[in-house]
Amino acid sequence: MQYRIEKDTMGEVKVPADKYWGAQTERSRNNFKIGPAASMPLEIVYGFAHLKKAAAYTNCELGVLPESKRDLIAAVCDEILEGKHDDQFPLVIWQTGSGTQSNMNVNEVIANRGHEIAGNTIGEGEKTLQPNDDVNKSQSSNDTFPTGMHIAAYSKITTSTLPGVRQLRDTLKAKSEAFKDVVKIGRTHLMDATPLTLGQEFSGYVSQLDHGIKALENTLDHLSELALGGTAVGTGLNTPEGYAELVASYIAKFTGMPFKSAANKFEALAAHDALVETHGALKQLAVALNKIANDIRMMASGPRSGIGELLIPANEPGSSIMPGKVNPTQCEALTMVCAQVMGNDVAVTVGGTQGHYELNVFKPVMAANVLQSATLIGDACRSFDEHCASGIEPNLPTIEKLVQNSLMLVTALNTKIGYYKAAEIANSAHQNGTTLKEEAVRLGYVTAEEYDQWVRPEDMV
Amino acid sequence: MQYRIEKDTMGEVKVPADKYWGAQTERSRNNFKIGPAASMPLEIVYGFAHLKKAAAYTNCELGVLPESKRDLIAAVCDEILEGKHDDQFPLVIWQTGSGTQSNMNVNEVIANRGHEIAGNTIGEGEKTLQPNDDVNKSQSSNDTFPTGMHIAAYSKITTSTLPGVRQLRDTLKAKSEAFKDVVKIGRTHLMDATPLTLGQEFSGYVSQLDHGIKALENTLDHLSELALGGTAVGTGLNTPEGYAELVASYIAKFTGMPFKSAANKFEALAAHDALVETHGALKQLAVALNKIANDIRMMASGPRSGIGELLIPANEPGSSIMPGKVNPTQCEALTMVCAQVMGNDVAVTVGGTQGHYELNVFKPVMAANVLQSATLIGDACRSFDEHCASGIEPNLPTIEKLVQNSLMLVTALNTKIGYYKAAEIANSAHQNGTTLKEEAVRLGYVTAEEYDQWVRPEDMV
Amino acid sequence: MQYRIEKDTMGEVKVPADKYWGAQTERSRNNFKIGPAASMPLEIVYGFAHLKKAAAYTNCELGVLPESKRDLIAAVCDEILEGKHDDQFPLVIWQTGSGTQSNMNVNEVIANRGHEIAGNTIGEGEKTLQPNDDVNKSQSSNDTFPTGMHIAAYSKITTSTLPGVRQLRDTLKAKSEAFKDVVKIGRTHLMDATPLTLGQEFSGYVSQLDHGIKALENTLDHLSELALGGTAVGTGLNTPEGYAELVASYIAKFTGMPFKSAANKFEALAAHDALVETHGALKQLAVALNKIANDIRMMASGPRSGIGELLIPANEPGSSIMPGKVNPTQCEALTMVCAQVMGNDVAVTVGGTQGHYELNVFKPVMAANVLQSATLIGDACRSFDEHCASGIEPNLPTIEKLVQNSLMLVTALNTKIGYYKAAEIANSAHQNGTTLKEEAVRLGYVTAEEYDQWVRPEDMV
Amino acid sequence: MQYRIEKDTMGEVKVPADKYWGAQTERSRNNFKIGPAASMPLEIVYGFAHLKKAAAYTNCELGVLPESKRDLIAAVCDEILEGKHDDQFPLVIWQTGSGTQSNMNVNEVIANRGHEIAGNTIGEGEKTLQPNDDVNKSQSSNDTFPTGMHIAAYSKITTSTLPGVRQLRDTLKAKSEAFKDVVKIGRTHLMDATPLTLGQEFSGYVSQLDHGIKALENTLDHLSELALGGTAVGTGLNTPEGYAELVASYIAKFTGMPFKSAANKFEALAAHDALVETHGALKQLAVALNKIANDIRMMASGPRSGIGELLIPANEPGSSIMPGKVNPTQCEALTMVCAQVMGNDVAVTVGGTQGHYELNVFKPVMAANVLQSATLIGDACRSFDEHCASGIEPNLPTIEKLVQNSLMLVTALNTKIGYYKAAEIANSAHQNGTTLKEEAVRLGYVTAEEYDQWVRPEDMV
Repeated sequence: MQYRIEKDTMGEVKVPADKYWGAQTERSRNNFKIGPAASMPLEIVYGFAHLKKAAAYTNCELGVLPESKRDLIAAVCDEILEGKHDDQFPLVIWQTGSGTQSNMNVNEVIANRGHEIAGNTIGEGEKTLQPNDDVNKSQSSNDTFPTGMHIAAYSKITTSTLPGVRQLRDTLKAKSEAFKDVVKIGRTHLMDATPLTLGQEFSGYVSQLDHGIKALENTLDHLSELALGGTAVGTGLNTPEGYAELVASYIAKFTGMPFKSAANKFEALAAHDALVETHGALKQLAVALNKIANDIRMMASGPRSGIGELLIPANEPGSSIMPGKVNPTQCEALTMVCAQVMGNDVAVTVGGTQGHYELNVFKPVMAANVLQSATLIGDACRSFDEHCASGIEPNLPTIEKLVQNSLMLVTALNTKIGYYKAAEIANSAHQNGTTLKEEAVRLGYVTAEEYDQWVRPEDMV
Repeated sequence: MQYRIEKDTMGEVKVPADKYWGAQTERSRNNFKIGPAASMPLEIVYGFAHLKKAAAYTNCELGVLPESKRDLIAAVCDEILEGKHDDQFPLVIWQTGSGTQSNMNVNEVIANRGHEIAGNTIGEGEKTLQPNDDVNKSQSSNDTFPTGMHIAAYSKITTSTLPGVRQLRDTLKAKSEAFKDVVKIGRTHLMDATPLTLGQEFSGYVSQLDHGIKALENTLDHLSELALGGTAVGTGLNTPEGYAELVASYIAKFTGMPFKSAANKFEALAAHDALVETHGALKQLAVALNKIANDIRMMASGPRSGIGELLIPANEPGSSIMPGKVNPTQCEALTMVCAQVMGNDVAVTVGGTQGHYELNVFKPVMAANVLQSATLIGDACRSFDEHCASGIEPNLPTIEKLVQNSLMLVTALNTKIGYYKAAEIANSAHQNGTTLKEEAVRLGYVTAEEYDQWVRPEDMV
Repeated sequence: MQYRIEKDTMGEVKVPADKYWGAQTERSRNNFKIGPAASMPLEIVYGFAHLKKAAAYTNCELGVLPESKRDLIAAVCDEILEGKHDDQFPLVIWQTGSGTQSNMNVNEVIANRGHEIAGNTIGEGEKTLQPNDDVNKSQSSNDTFPTGMHIAAYSKITTSTLPGVRQLRDTLKAKSEAFKDVVKIGRTHLMDATPLTLGQEFSGYVSQLDHGIKALENTLDHLSELALGGTAVGTGLNTPEGYAELVASYIAKFTGMPFKSAANKFEALAAHDALVETHGALKQLAVALNKIANDIRMMASGPRSGIGELLIPANEPGSSIMPGKVNPTQCEALTMVCAQVMGNDVAVTVGGTQGHYELNVFKPVMAANVLQSATLIGDACRSFDEHCASGIEPNLPTIEKLVQNSLMLVTALNTKIGYYKAAEIANSAHQNGTTLKEEAVRLGYVTAEEYDQWVRPEDMV
Repeated sequence: MQYRIEKDTMGEVKVPADKYWGAQTERSRNNFKIGPAASMPLEIVYGFAHLKKAAAYTNCELGVLPESKRDLIAAVCDEILEGKHDDQFPLVIWQTGSGTQSNMNVNEVIANRGHEIAGNTIGEGEKTLQPNDDVNKSQSSNDTFPTGMHIAAYSKITTSTLPGVRQLRDTLKAKSEAFKDVVKIGRTHLMDATPLTLGQEFSGYVSQLDHGIKALENTLDHLSELALGGTAVGTGLNTPEGYAELVASYIAKFTGMPFKSAANKFEALAAHDALVETHGALKQLAVALNKIANDIRMMASGPRSGIGELLIPANEPGSSIMPGKVNPTQCEALTMVCAQVMGNDVAVTVGGTQGHYELNVFKPVMAANVLQSATLIGDACRSFDEHCASGIEPNLPTIEKLVQNSLMLVTALNTKIGYYKAAEIANSAHQNGTTLKEEAVRLGYVTAEEYDQWVRPEDMV
């Protein structure tokens, strides 16, 4: 492999000649061989591209960076955002906990690629852009990394997670309306209970997702606060007057999202409660989705020896040994995602507790877990919606049979003959293997006509 | 021990003669010997007392319960709320997951005590009040228990948790203002960094708590939704017209809190995402408090061989073997509470995922964990505030010495001579054991006068 | 209330006159009003009683404590172990993280009660026993508390948890044998699959518990290591030669359990990985029990509109509104316990990570969670065994019907006609609502005779 | 892109012409667009390659597969294990929870590549090998996937995790010996305590890792049990006599690892407590490593305004804004890994609880989390060892200064003058800012000579 020499304040480093990155990136590659390469999420790199461009515009507007440098920086940022340099970010999550090395990775790539755009050859001549003094001007890793991760998380959640959940929510809402007249047995404790409609059952799922969506939206305000302008410890040392607010407004403009400067930069560097808060809402959604997916696969169980009340799409052969088997695979993928999100929540929580003094150094692991959860929930909701929920149909004959069987229809008699006599009827039917009506009449508590008039599943919903 | 005979639909049971409870409570005592007795939180019993009274008023107003019974029920509920019957609720958390047995415990105590108030002797004569047909009228365990737990959690959070957190927040805010001119070294990665004021450092804690308070308040709306009126499966079977809204308004009136009827009763029985949501916010507060307590004990470490920047109250001898030792015990109690809350969050989450069909049967464990976390956070914030935070003082000589020592003051030169020369100065001072000023002048990058003018900690904050 | 004056190195404190505790206990009561009083588990107090007595014997044998003091200390310890002083330990979990105050609580109670046994009046005259110099001789909170918690956890696990799990395991083993000829449908992905026997299904539960028991036993060796002899930081300062080994042997003798002196006292004070390890195994058991309880309640679901393959005991009325309802309440109690244990695991884990330098100050929260989980698992297994598992019976007609229905019996034809033709048969039967045999013959792949000979559930298990 | 047509029991599917996979893999790609492609760990694919080859040998030896097919299957498996087909496994973790589609992916790749090796062109002619009837013979996804994941986890742990942990343990052991005479201050509650040697402090870390290694090794026996031979539900339907034991012995032979057939196949399919058990031990190691890394970074904090007792290697510039800053980055990477492992533990636990009837369908998420944790711990220990631990040196002047400062040296006087007088000395020195010796003499409790003789840090360790 061909190499060139790059330098930083610690000395010279050999870097692959065909890469834009510099000394500090290469040091990190060598020093942190932990897990697969390039595990640092690209979404964070893109967040950095937005903020580096915004910082360049702000620095220029405030008189501390010439327009020529601004434009070079902005040009490279735009290339990064177009996905042209995805292979220039080889670092891992498991590096310094401030993400300094990923910040420098971005600074170095921008500096070298900017040098090239300016008509030079990398590694030759005076650097057109200095990674620290120009690209990182008025910044520190300590305020850029949290800014990058907030941009990444906010974007992911608003453009992927929430749309995915809403898509599924809307399908379930439509199903709830379509199934509003399908009277079925209710089940509590997994046991036969009084009836409800399938539409009512689905309306509960819709309500869970509505609450979950609202909870996630509630966290966006905290997430929209950006640390940029705090620099090293939150004081904003080495930033020009007005920098923090202006750079946030540029980021808002470039992303089209309502970012704002954090009111308190000390918190914004030293604590990442905003990520804890956001992930808490993602976890709540996981809880809701888990319930929904579980219900659907239990109601679809069978086809002949299970509950069998729902029919779900058969998307693929279900078994490598049992011919003709169809499984609720979308439910399984979704609930596995839920398990992962519940685990990620603990990783984010633990990381969140461990800020010390002016800095929390669990930034990469927290950000990576938030982004993974946000991605998985959005994707899994879409997948579940398209390949399962939208195709759910009631298995009407089974539903009808199961509701008619239920001994819990006796509850309708509570207000007529009291709980205790009603219980006697149900217990007798259960022990004798008879119907409620037979026992009700036999025990003399109601007439057959009264029974037919009072015990009607369709009136009990 | 003296016993009397009580009956339920399964037959006769011997019950201690001096207790108000009946057959179903006694069955539960015998069938669930898991952990210490009476672990079901009393707060939930009190929640039940509010709702039983409200149900009686509503049933009466809607014409399905006579005034005499309403008044008897209300009288016992008031006695329960005065704490007169705390020893009448012997059941454990680890019973049926719907809390049915605790609902019946309340029904039975109200029925028997009401019988007594009406001038009768327990166990003699026709029951004045029937536990199921009168006390539980228009109700099911499936809607009362979640109602009781929402009342309990909402009350605990608004009357204990939030006031506790706010009390600590206000003290930290006052300290932040009192310490606004105390310039100290900043630390990132636990390492010396650029300076800030102690007031700024504390302002970060205030901001964390402000965000945490807001996050917890955001969850109250979901928590204010009451399941009552859903009865067995959410349909409201066996309730009179208008019952759900009216009973919620009575509960709001009796508690003085803005409870309302849940828009979707199917969710309210089958899922407890509201508890998951609320506990998520409690966990966020635990994360914030953990950071704050950790910082304070690290800054107070010493007294001679630690960081030693803060002085905290000495409340008790710290060691049974080391004479004169004082420890940051309030920080320890608080961080232990945080660890517990993080664990409880997982218990609540796991319970939340496991609703099946029309009912979640992890109600008691979810409610108990939410109540424990809410109690512990409120109490621990008060304890930490009164015995630690309010007494924190800066150790000015140490603070002054440590900030002057710091090599990171060199950062002030970045904008004068560039990052790379500034790094050279810092590295030289580190290697030679000299001061920044000595090296800056020796290397010829600044004059002594320039150094003194540019490198001033008080200008860097 | 009557008070007397007690003193410690910080001065005088008013203590309730009728209590044996002293100044430091009283300070802790006042300084840590967090959660309910006396939450520190009594099991730990009893662990302390064992170790204080053992320390007295060891100190005496090594010549640093007179026999008279040894005997006084031992006498009080025996009283404590008889449960005579349970009301003398009012402190909470949420105190100093070293448990110093609970150590002093024990020291003070022993000193004052010993003074009394020696014929004196508390608060009068020279103290016969000094809490620190006599009762705590050759000890520190830092080595006594971890010793007390190891004794408590080891005892609880070996005398309650493991016997409880084994009791349930033995019942399931007996059921597995009793059900060995009951051929039933298997289910994978909740869907109909090839058959197995009910006995085979239960044998999987037995195997899970066998592995779980073994995993828990594997952790006992680490748990049997005692910190005592490490004193303040692990060096054993102020202990006589040979103390650590001798005191461990006395503890082993007094408890009848194989305790030993920890090979490395620095770990034993600064880290509680032994508790993390033990709780990890408790959590594994929770995972196993959760699976078992879930299966049983799903197979017992119904009685008419569920799976209905198992009959479980009806222990109590299941519903306050639905007459005659019976629920799988023991399964619910057990799975709620499992959720709690999973949460506790995180609390223990988080506490375990936070040892600093020579001491982990999350001892009380870690110990309390381990003890709660150990208690709940043992109790819940016994409860589940006695009130559910031991009464499980197969519902043979339903089992027979469901296995005959299954389309997955077609798998038996794989080795005769290949997977793909077998799949065609199953798919046709599913679509046409016919039997496998009808389709197999219609498609010409097998004769009716061949079908009857090859497709026999009882040969497929 | 070029496509060819592949078929399964559901019909035809277009597959990229240059890929070996078939219809079911392609269906899964289309149906599960959740997260990044190819997230299913390659280690599991390699585990499958071992088992498919072993199954072919076993089937052949037992007379149900011809030698020619055995050799073709084995040849492709060997190619897979050489890494030649890594791009042929595009599926994600978030698929069916049985991993059926990954099993079929392997079956299809083997069948098509085997067809090619046999001299044919993919997609043309009769398939030389049938994915289901030949490659999957005597197998089901339900027993192959757990077998593959056990092989993958066992291999990773024994060849990467344990060697990594042991490498770090050996370095810490060597440091412990090298530092055995360095007397330093001890710290409890983060506060000054009695002295110990730096070697003793490090010996605690060694002991933690020794216990952690032992705990992880304890789990290997359960993990060495293979499900293969259970087929669809654990009964071993469609396997020849003797298959299970023979195939396990082939796997043991091919891998060189002591795998064995699971004694109970019903557990092996329906529960993955072995993964829960193994991950519990990985989590214990994370707890230990977190403590160690935290201690080291706190002791290395500074360089001038922290604790400063340790010097750690400076591997890279620590700050993009603060020149000359060096940070404990390896500690940060390691503790971030620990946070992830703690989170993964919950994901594995939750997945483990949710087996239903004869199958646990959280296999991929459980396996992926175990593999990630095992990889990260091994890699991070190596990285931490090579770039941090092996270069740790004591900062002797600081260590000496801090131990001499400590007021807790007074503990040495306990056995001479009693705890209470010693406390008076320490308190006086603390309040007056004097030395212990000055106060001891001033108070008249000891002479200067006695003080010098009795209070010697080097005698207190």
